[in-house]
Amino acid sequence: MTDRIPSAVPGPGELSEAELAQRLQARRQWLGDTDFAYDPPLEPVRGDGVYLFDSAGQRYLDMHSTVPSMGHGHPEVVSAIAAQAATLNIHARHLNNVVEAYAARLLGLFPAPLGNLVMTCSGSEANDLALRLARLVTGGKGIIVTSGARHGSTATTAEISPGLGQPLPAHVRTIPPPDPSLAKGAALGPWFAARVREEANVLQKTGAGFAALVLESGFAFDGVFTDPPGFLTEAVSAARQAGGLFIADEVQTGFGRTGMFWGFSRHGVVPDVVTLGKPMGNGYPMGGVVMRAQHLARLNASAPYISGCGGSPVAAAAGMAVLDVIETEKLVRNAVRSGEALRKGLRRLARSFPRIAAIRGAGLLIAVDLVMPETGAPDPGAARRAINALQRNFVLVCSATPCGHTLQLRPPLSISAEQVAQFLEIFGGVLATLE
Amino acid sequence: MTDRIPSAVPGPGELSEAELAQRLQARRQWLGDTDFAYDPPLEPVRGDGVYLFDSAGQRYLDMHSTVPSMGHGHPEVVSAIAAQAATLNIHARHLNNVVEAYAARLLGLFPAPLGNLVMTCSGSEANDLALRLARLVTGGKGIIVTSGARHGSTATTAEISPGLGQPLPAHVRTIPPPDPSLAKGAALGPWFAARVREEANVLQKTGAGFAALVLESGFAFDGVFTDPPGFLTEAVSAARQAGGLFIADEVQTGFGRTGMFWGFSRHGVVPDVVTLGKPMGNGYPMGGVVMRAQHLARLNASAPYISGCGGSPVAAAAGMAVLDVIETEKLVRNAVRSGEALRKGLRRLARSFPRIAAIRGAGLLIAVDLVMPETGAPDPGAARRAINALQRNFVLVCSATPCGHTLQLRPPLSISAEQVAQFLEIFGGVLATLE
Repeated sequence: MTDRIPSAVPGPGELSEAELAQRLQARRQWLGDTDFAYDPPLEPVRGDGVYLFDSAGQRYLDMHSTVPSMGHGHPEVVSAIAAQAATLNIHARHLNNVVEAYAARLLGLFPAPLGNLVMTCSGSEANDLALRLARLVTGGKGIIVTSGARHGSTATTAEISPGLGQPLPAHVRTIPPPDPSLAKGAALGPWFAARVREEANVLQKTGAGFAALVLESGFAFDGVFTDPPGFLTEAVSAARQAGGLFIADEVQTGFGRTGMFWGFSRHGVVPDVVTLGKPMGNGYPMGGVVMRAQHLARLNASAPYISGCGGSPVAAAAGMAVLDVIETEKLVRNAVRSGEALRKGLRRLARSFPRIAAIRGAGLLIAVDLVMPETGAPDPGAARRAINALQRNFVLVCSATPCGHTLQLRPPLSISAEQVAQFLEIFGGVLATLE
Repeated sequence: MTDRIPSAVPGPGELSEAELAQRLQARRQWLGDTDFAYDPPLEPVRGDGVYLFDSAGQRYLDMHSTVPSMGHGHPEVVSAIAAQAATLNIHARHLNNVVEAYAARLLGLFPAPLGNLVMTCSGSEANDLALRLARLVTGGKGIIVTSGARHGSTATTAEISPGLGQPLPAHVRTIPPPDPSLAKGAALGPWFAARVREEANVLQKTGAGFAALVLESGFAFDGVFTDPPGFLTEAVSAARQAGGLFIADEVQTGFGRTGMFWGFSRHGVVPDVVTLGKPMGNGYPMGGVVMRAQHLARLNASAPYISGCGGSPVAAAAGMAVLDVIETEKLVRNAVRSGEALRKGLRRLARSFPRIAAIRGAGLLIAVDLVMPETGAPDPGAARRAINALQRNFVLVCSATPCGHTLQLRPPLSISAEQVAQFLEIFGGVLATLE
């Protein structure tokens, strides 16, 4: 860890406790209380590939960020943004070759009949528009989501995000995550589909009607559930039989994260609507809703989607550069390989450390459950201590499950075999010292 | 008009009718029907200051765009985005000096008690969050807006946007715009306030309760109403007396557009919540909600606002560059001067052309009503013909009122006296030939 970079910015690592308190106080004055990712908070000042650097020049292996899937500060994406922003950045109500070429290329990555695109400024806006579409098309209002899901920060998407901890309105019904241990020996697909049918019935009985089943393709906020491949098939059929659309939220899993270009492909299903965000612009704020032609026509007939910045040529240029990078650097294949190496190494660690109760995931979306070795009970305290110990060892991971006993590993898709080995070595050391 | 630039991209100006049809067909295949700004659509390929250029190198004076208020492709903003994107682009859950410095500087431009900021990815997301806050704080659901207003494209903000033409839910009530001609001789302020009181009463009687009066500070979508300064005072008091918040939507008027930094300042009122968008990043997708400390605390206690790209250091760098440019280039003062020159010239034209029935606005948000010279009746057909004739003369304006007989002039704030004179000469020529 010798990559010390010069910086005039004092980071928390260099501040005394009193100075840090003063810095936090100043921040609180303008921005209110921040839900910091680490305690004490980290202050990265530079990013490069899979690494973040703090103001002291200390390098951190980033196994945490979901937005810069192509790597921090990817030069090709940055250049594309800079060049297009200097040339033309304008709203979407003109002809524009960059935007049209991006739409054509992106949509070429989807199965029929998913052939139309609306571009937004965020994944939240994409999910928000998808809900509007589903309600317009079905005439129903009710939505089914998993109990830990988060689908966005607009009023409408926060309403379908039980993972945010707010009370849900009556027209939002939750089902348990597709966790094989909950199915108690039953086949996961039919068990999960039965939950969808039950809640669709409830929605129809209450008069809310059923508009859509909205599932994040990797169930990241529920704790990552990706196996067995294909388990979504029955649930999707059940949703359609009940008159609802199936909306695949690919804000986290899209663009190669799970070792396939789209998370839903793992299950052999074709969604009615797909929503995109985070990695789409590798940090440039953009999102998208992919749908079939007649749904877009229906939406436009209701009210055209107007956005000052959504669908701009700069967003398209960023998106195009992301697709180029994925292709040139073979990132989907790397997600498969590095993901396999990571899970293999984790399974090896699990043989030595009974704290690891389960390893789940696909590609580079991986969950590790930590439990009490004696009882096997979920141990969120151990997860918290592991996250902080990893940070002290300059590795960033996070926990994103309702119970908090699950570590999530989701590094940039460009992570190398050496960096995977480096992580496993440090994680082994942390597990060895974990109280 | 000699600025021909080389381009490999064929624009509609160079295409035969058959080729244009083919181009439109290809676009429709991916992006559906576009609500183009012009017919036939324009294809700008480059922007520079107040000018756009098409693929033939033809230069257009842009009096239409509201996003790039600091001018197309402003080099200082573009450099700031490029430099920060290459250095660090990350979510808002870390300490970050760039973000903190931007928040402090931006908030320094607001009157007390408006001292806290949440950053979003768009003006739509900002208005959406403001509605969530108002409902949380008041316990009411009802919103009052003007009859032509547009406040965004999320489900919740589209609901309070009668200008989009969709039916409104019962908890959204409209009032007429603050048009002196509707007040029929009564003082505008008290007349407008009485409309707010009436609708707040209706909301309270229906049980929806009253959460907020949401007004776009320049009433751009209603046809631009800015006079007399101070007319909002009574309406804001009326809203508060009825238990609601006053949300000032500054997505269009913020950052100097009306010749003051904020549109609400013209009326001597201090809003409860201010929402920001479009010019905030001069094209970089960002928005913001400015509020008082106890409201932010309330929001965070309900559910923290989490965004993958909102509040990133790149957004902060873009926003900071925008503030620098406004200051260095004295753009607010220029908006006053160029706006006055523009209105003065328009008044001169009105004396020769009875088609011009009214000129309204402040700074560089200006509306010109076109009527039948014989009857004085609104003439949307003439406005359409004027817009197309101006485009043929390489000047871009738009119409954004319910009736469509109003031309809107809202050029970049850097427009010079010479460019204003150029516009007036061309507009005079168009008026002379208008059937």
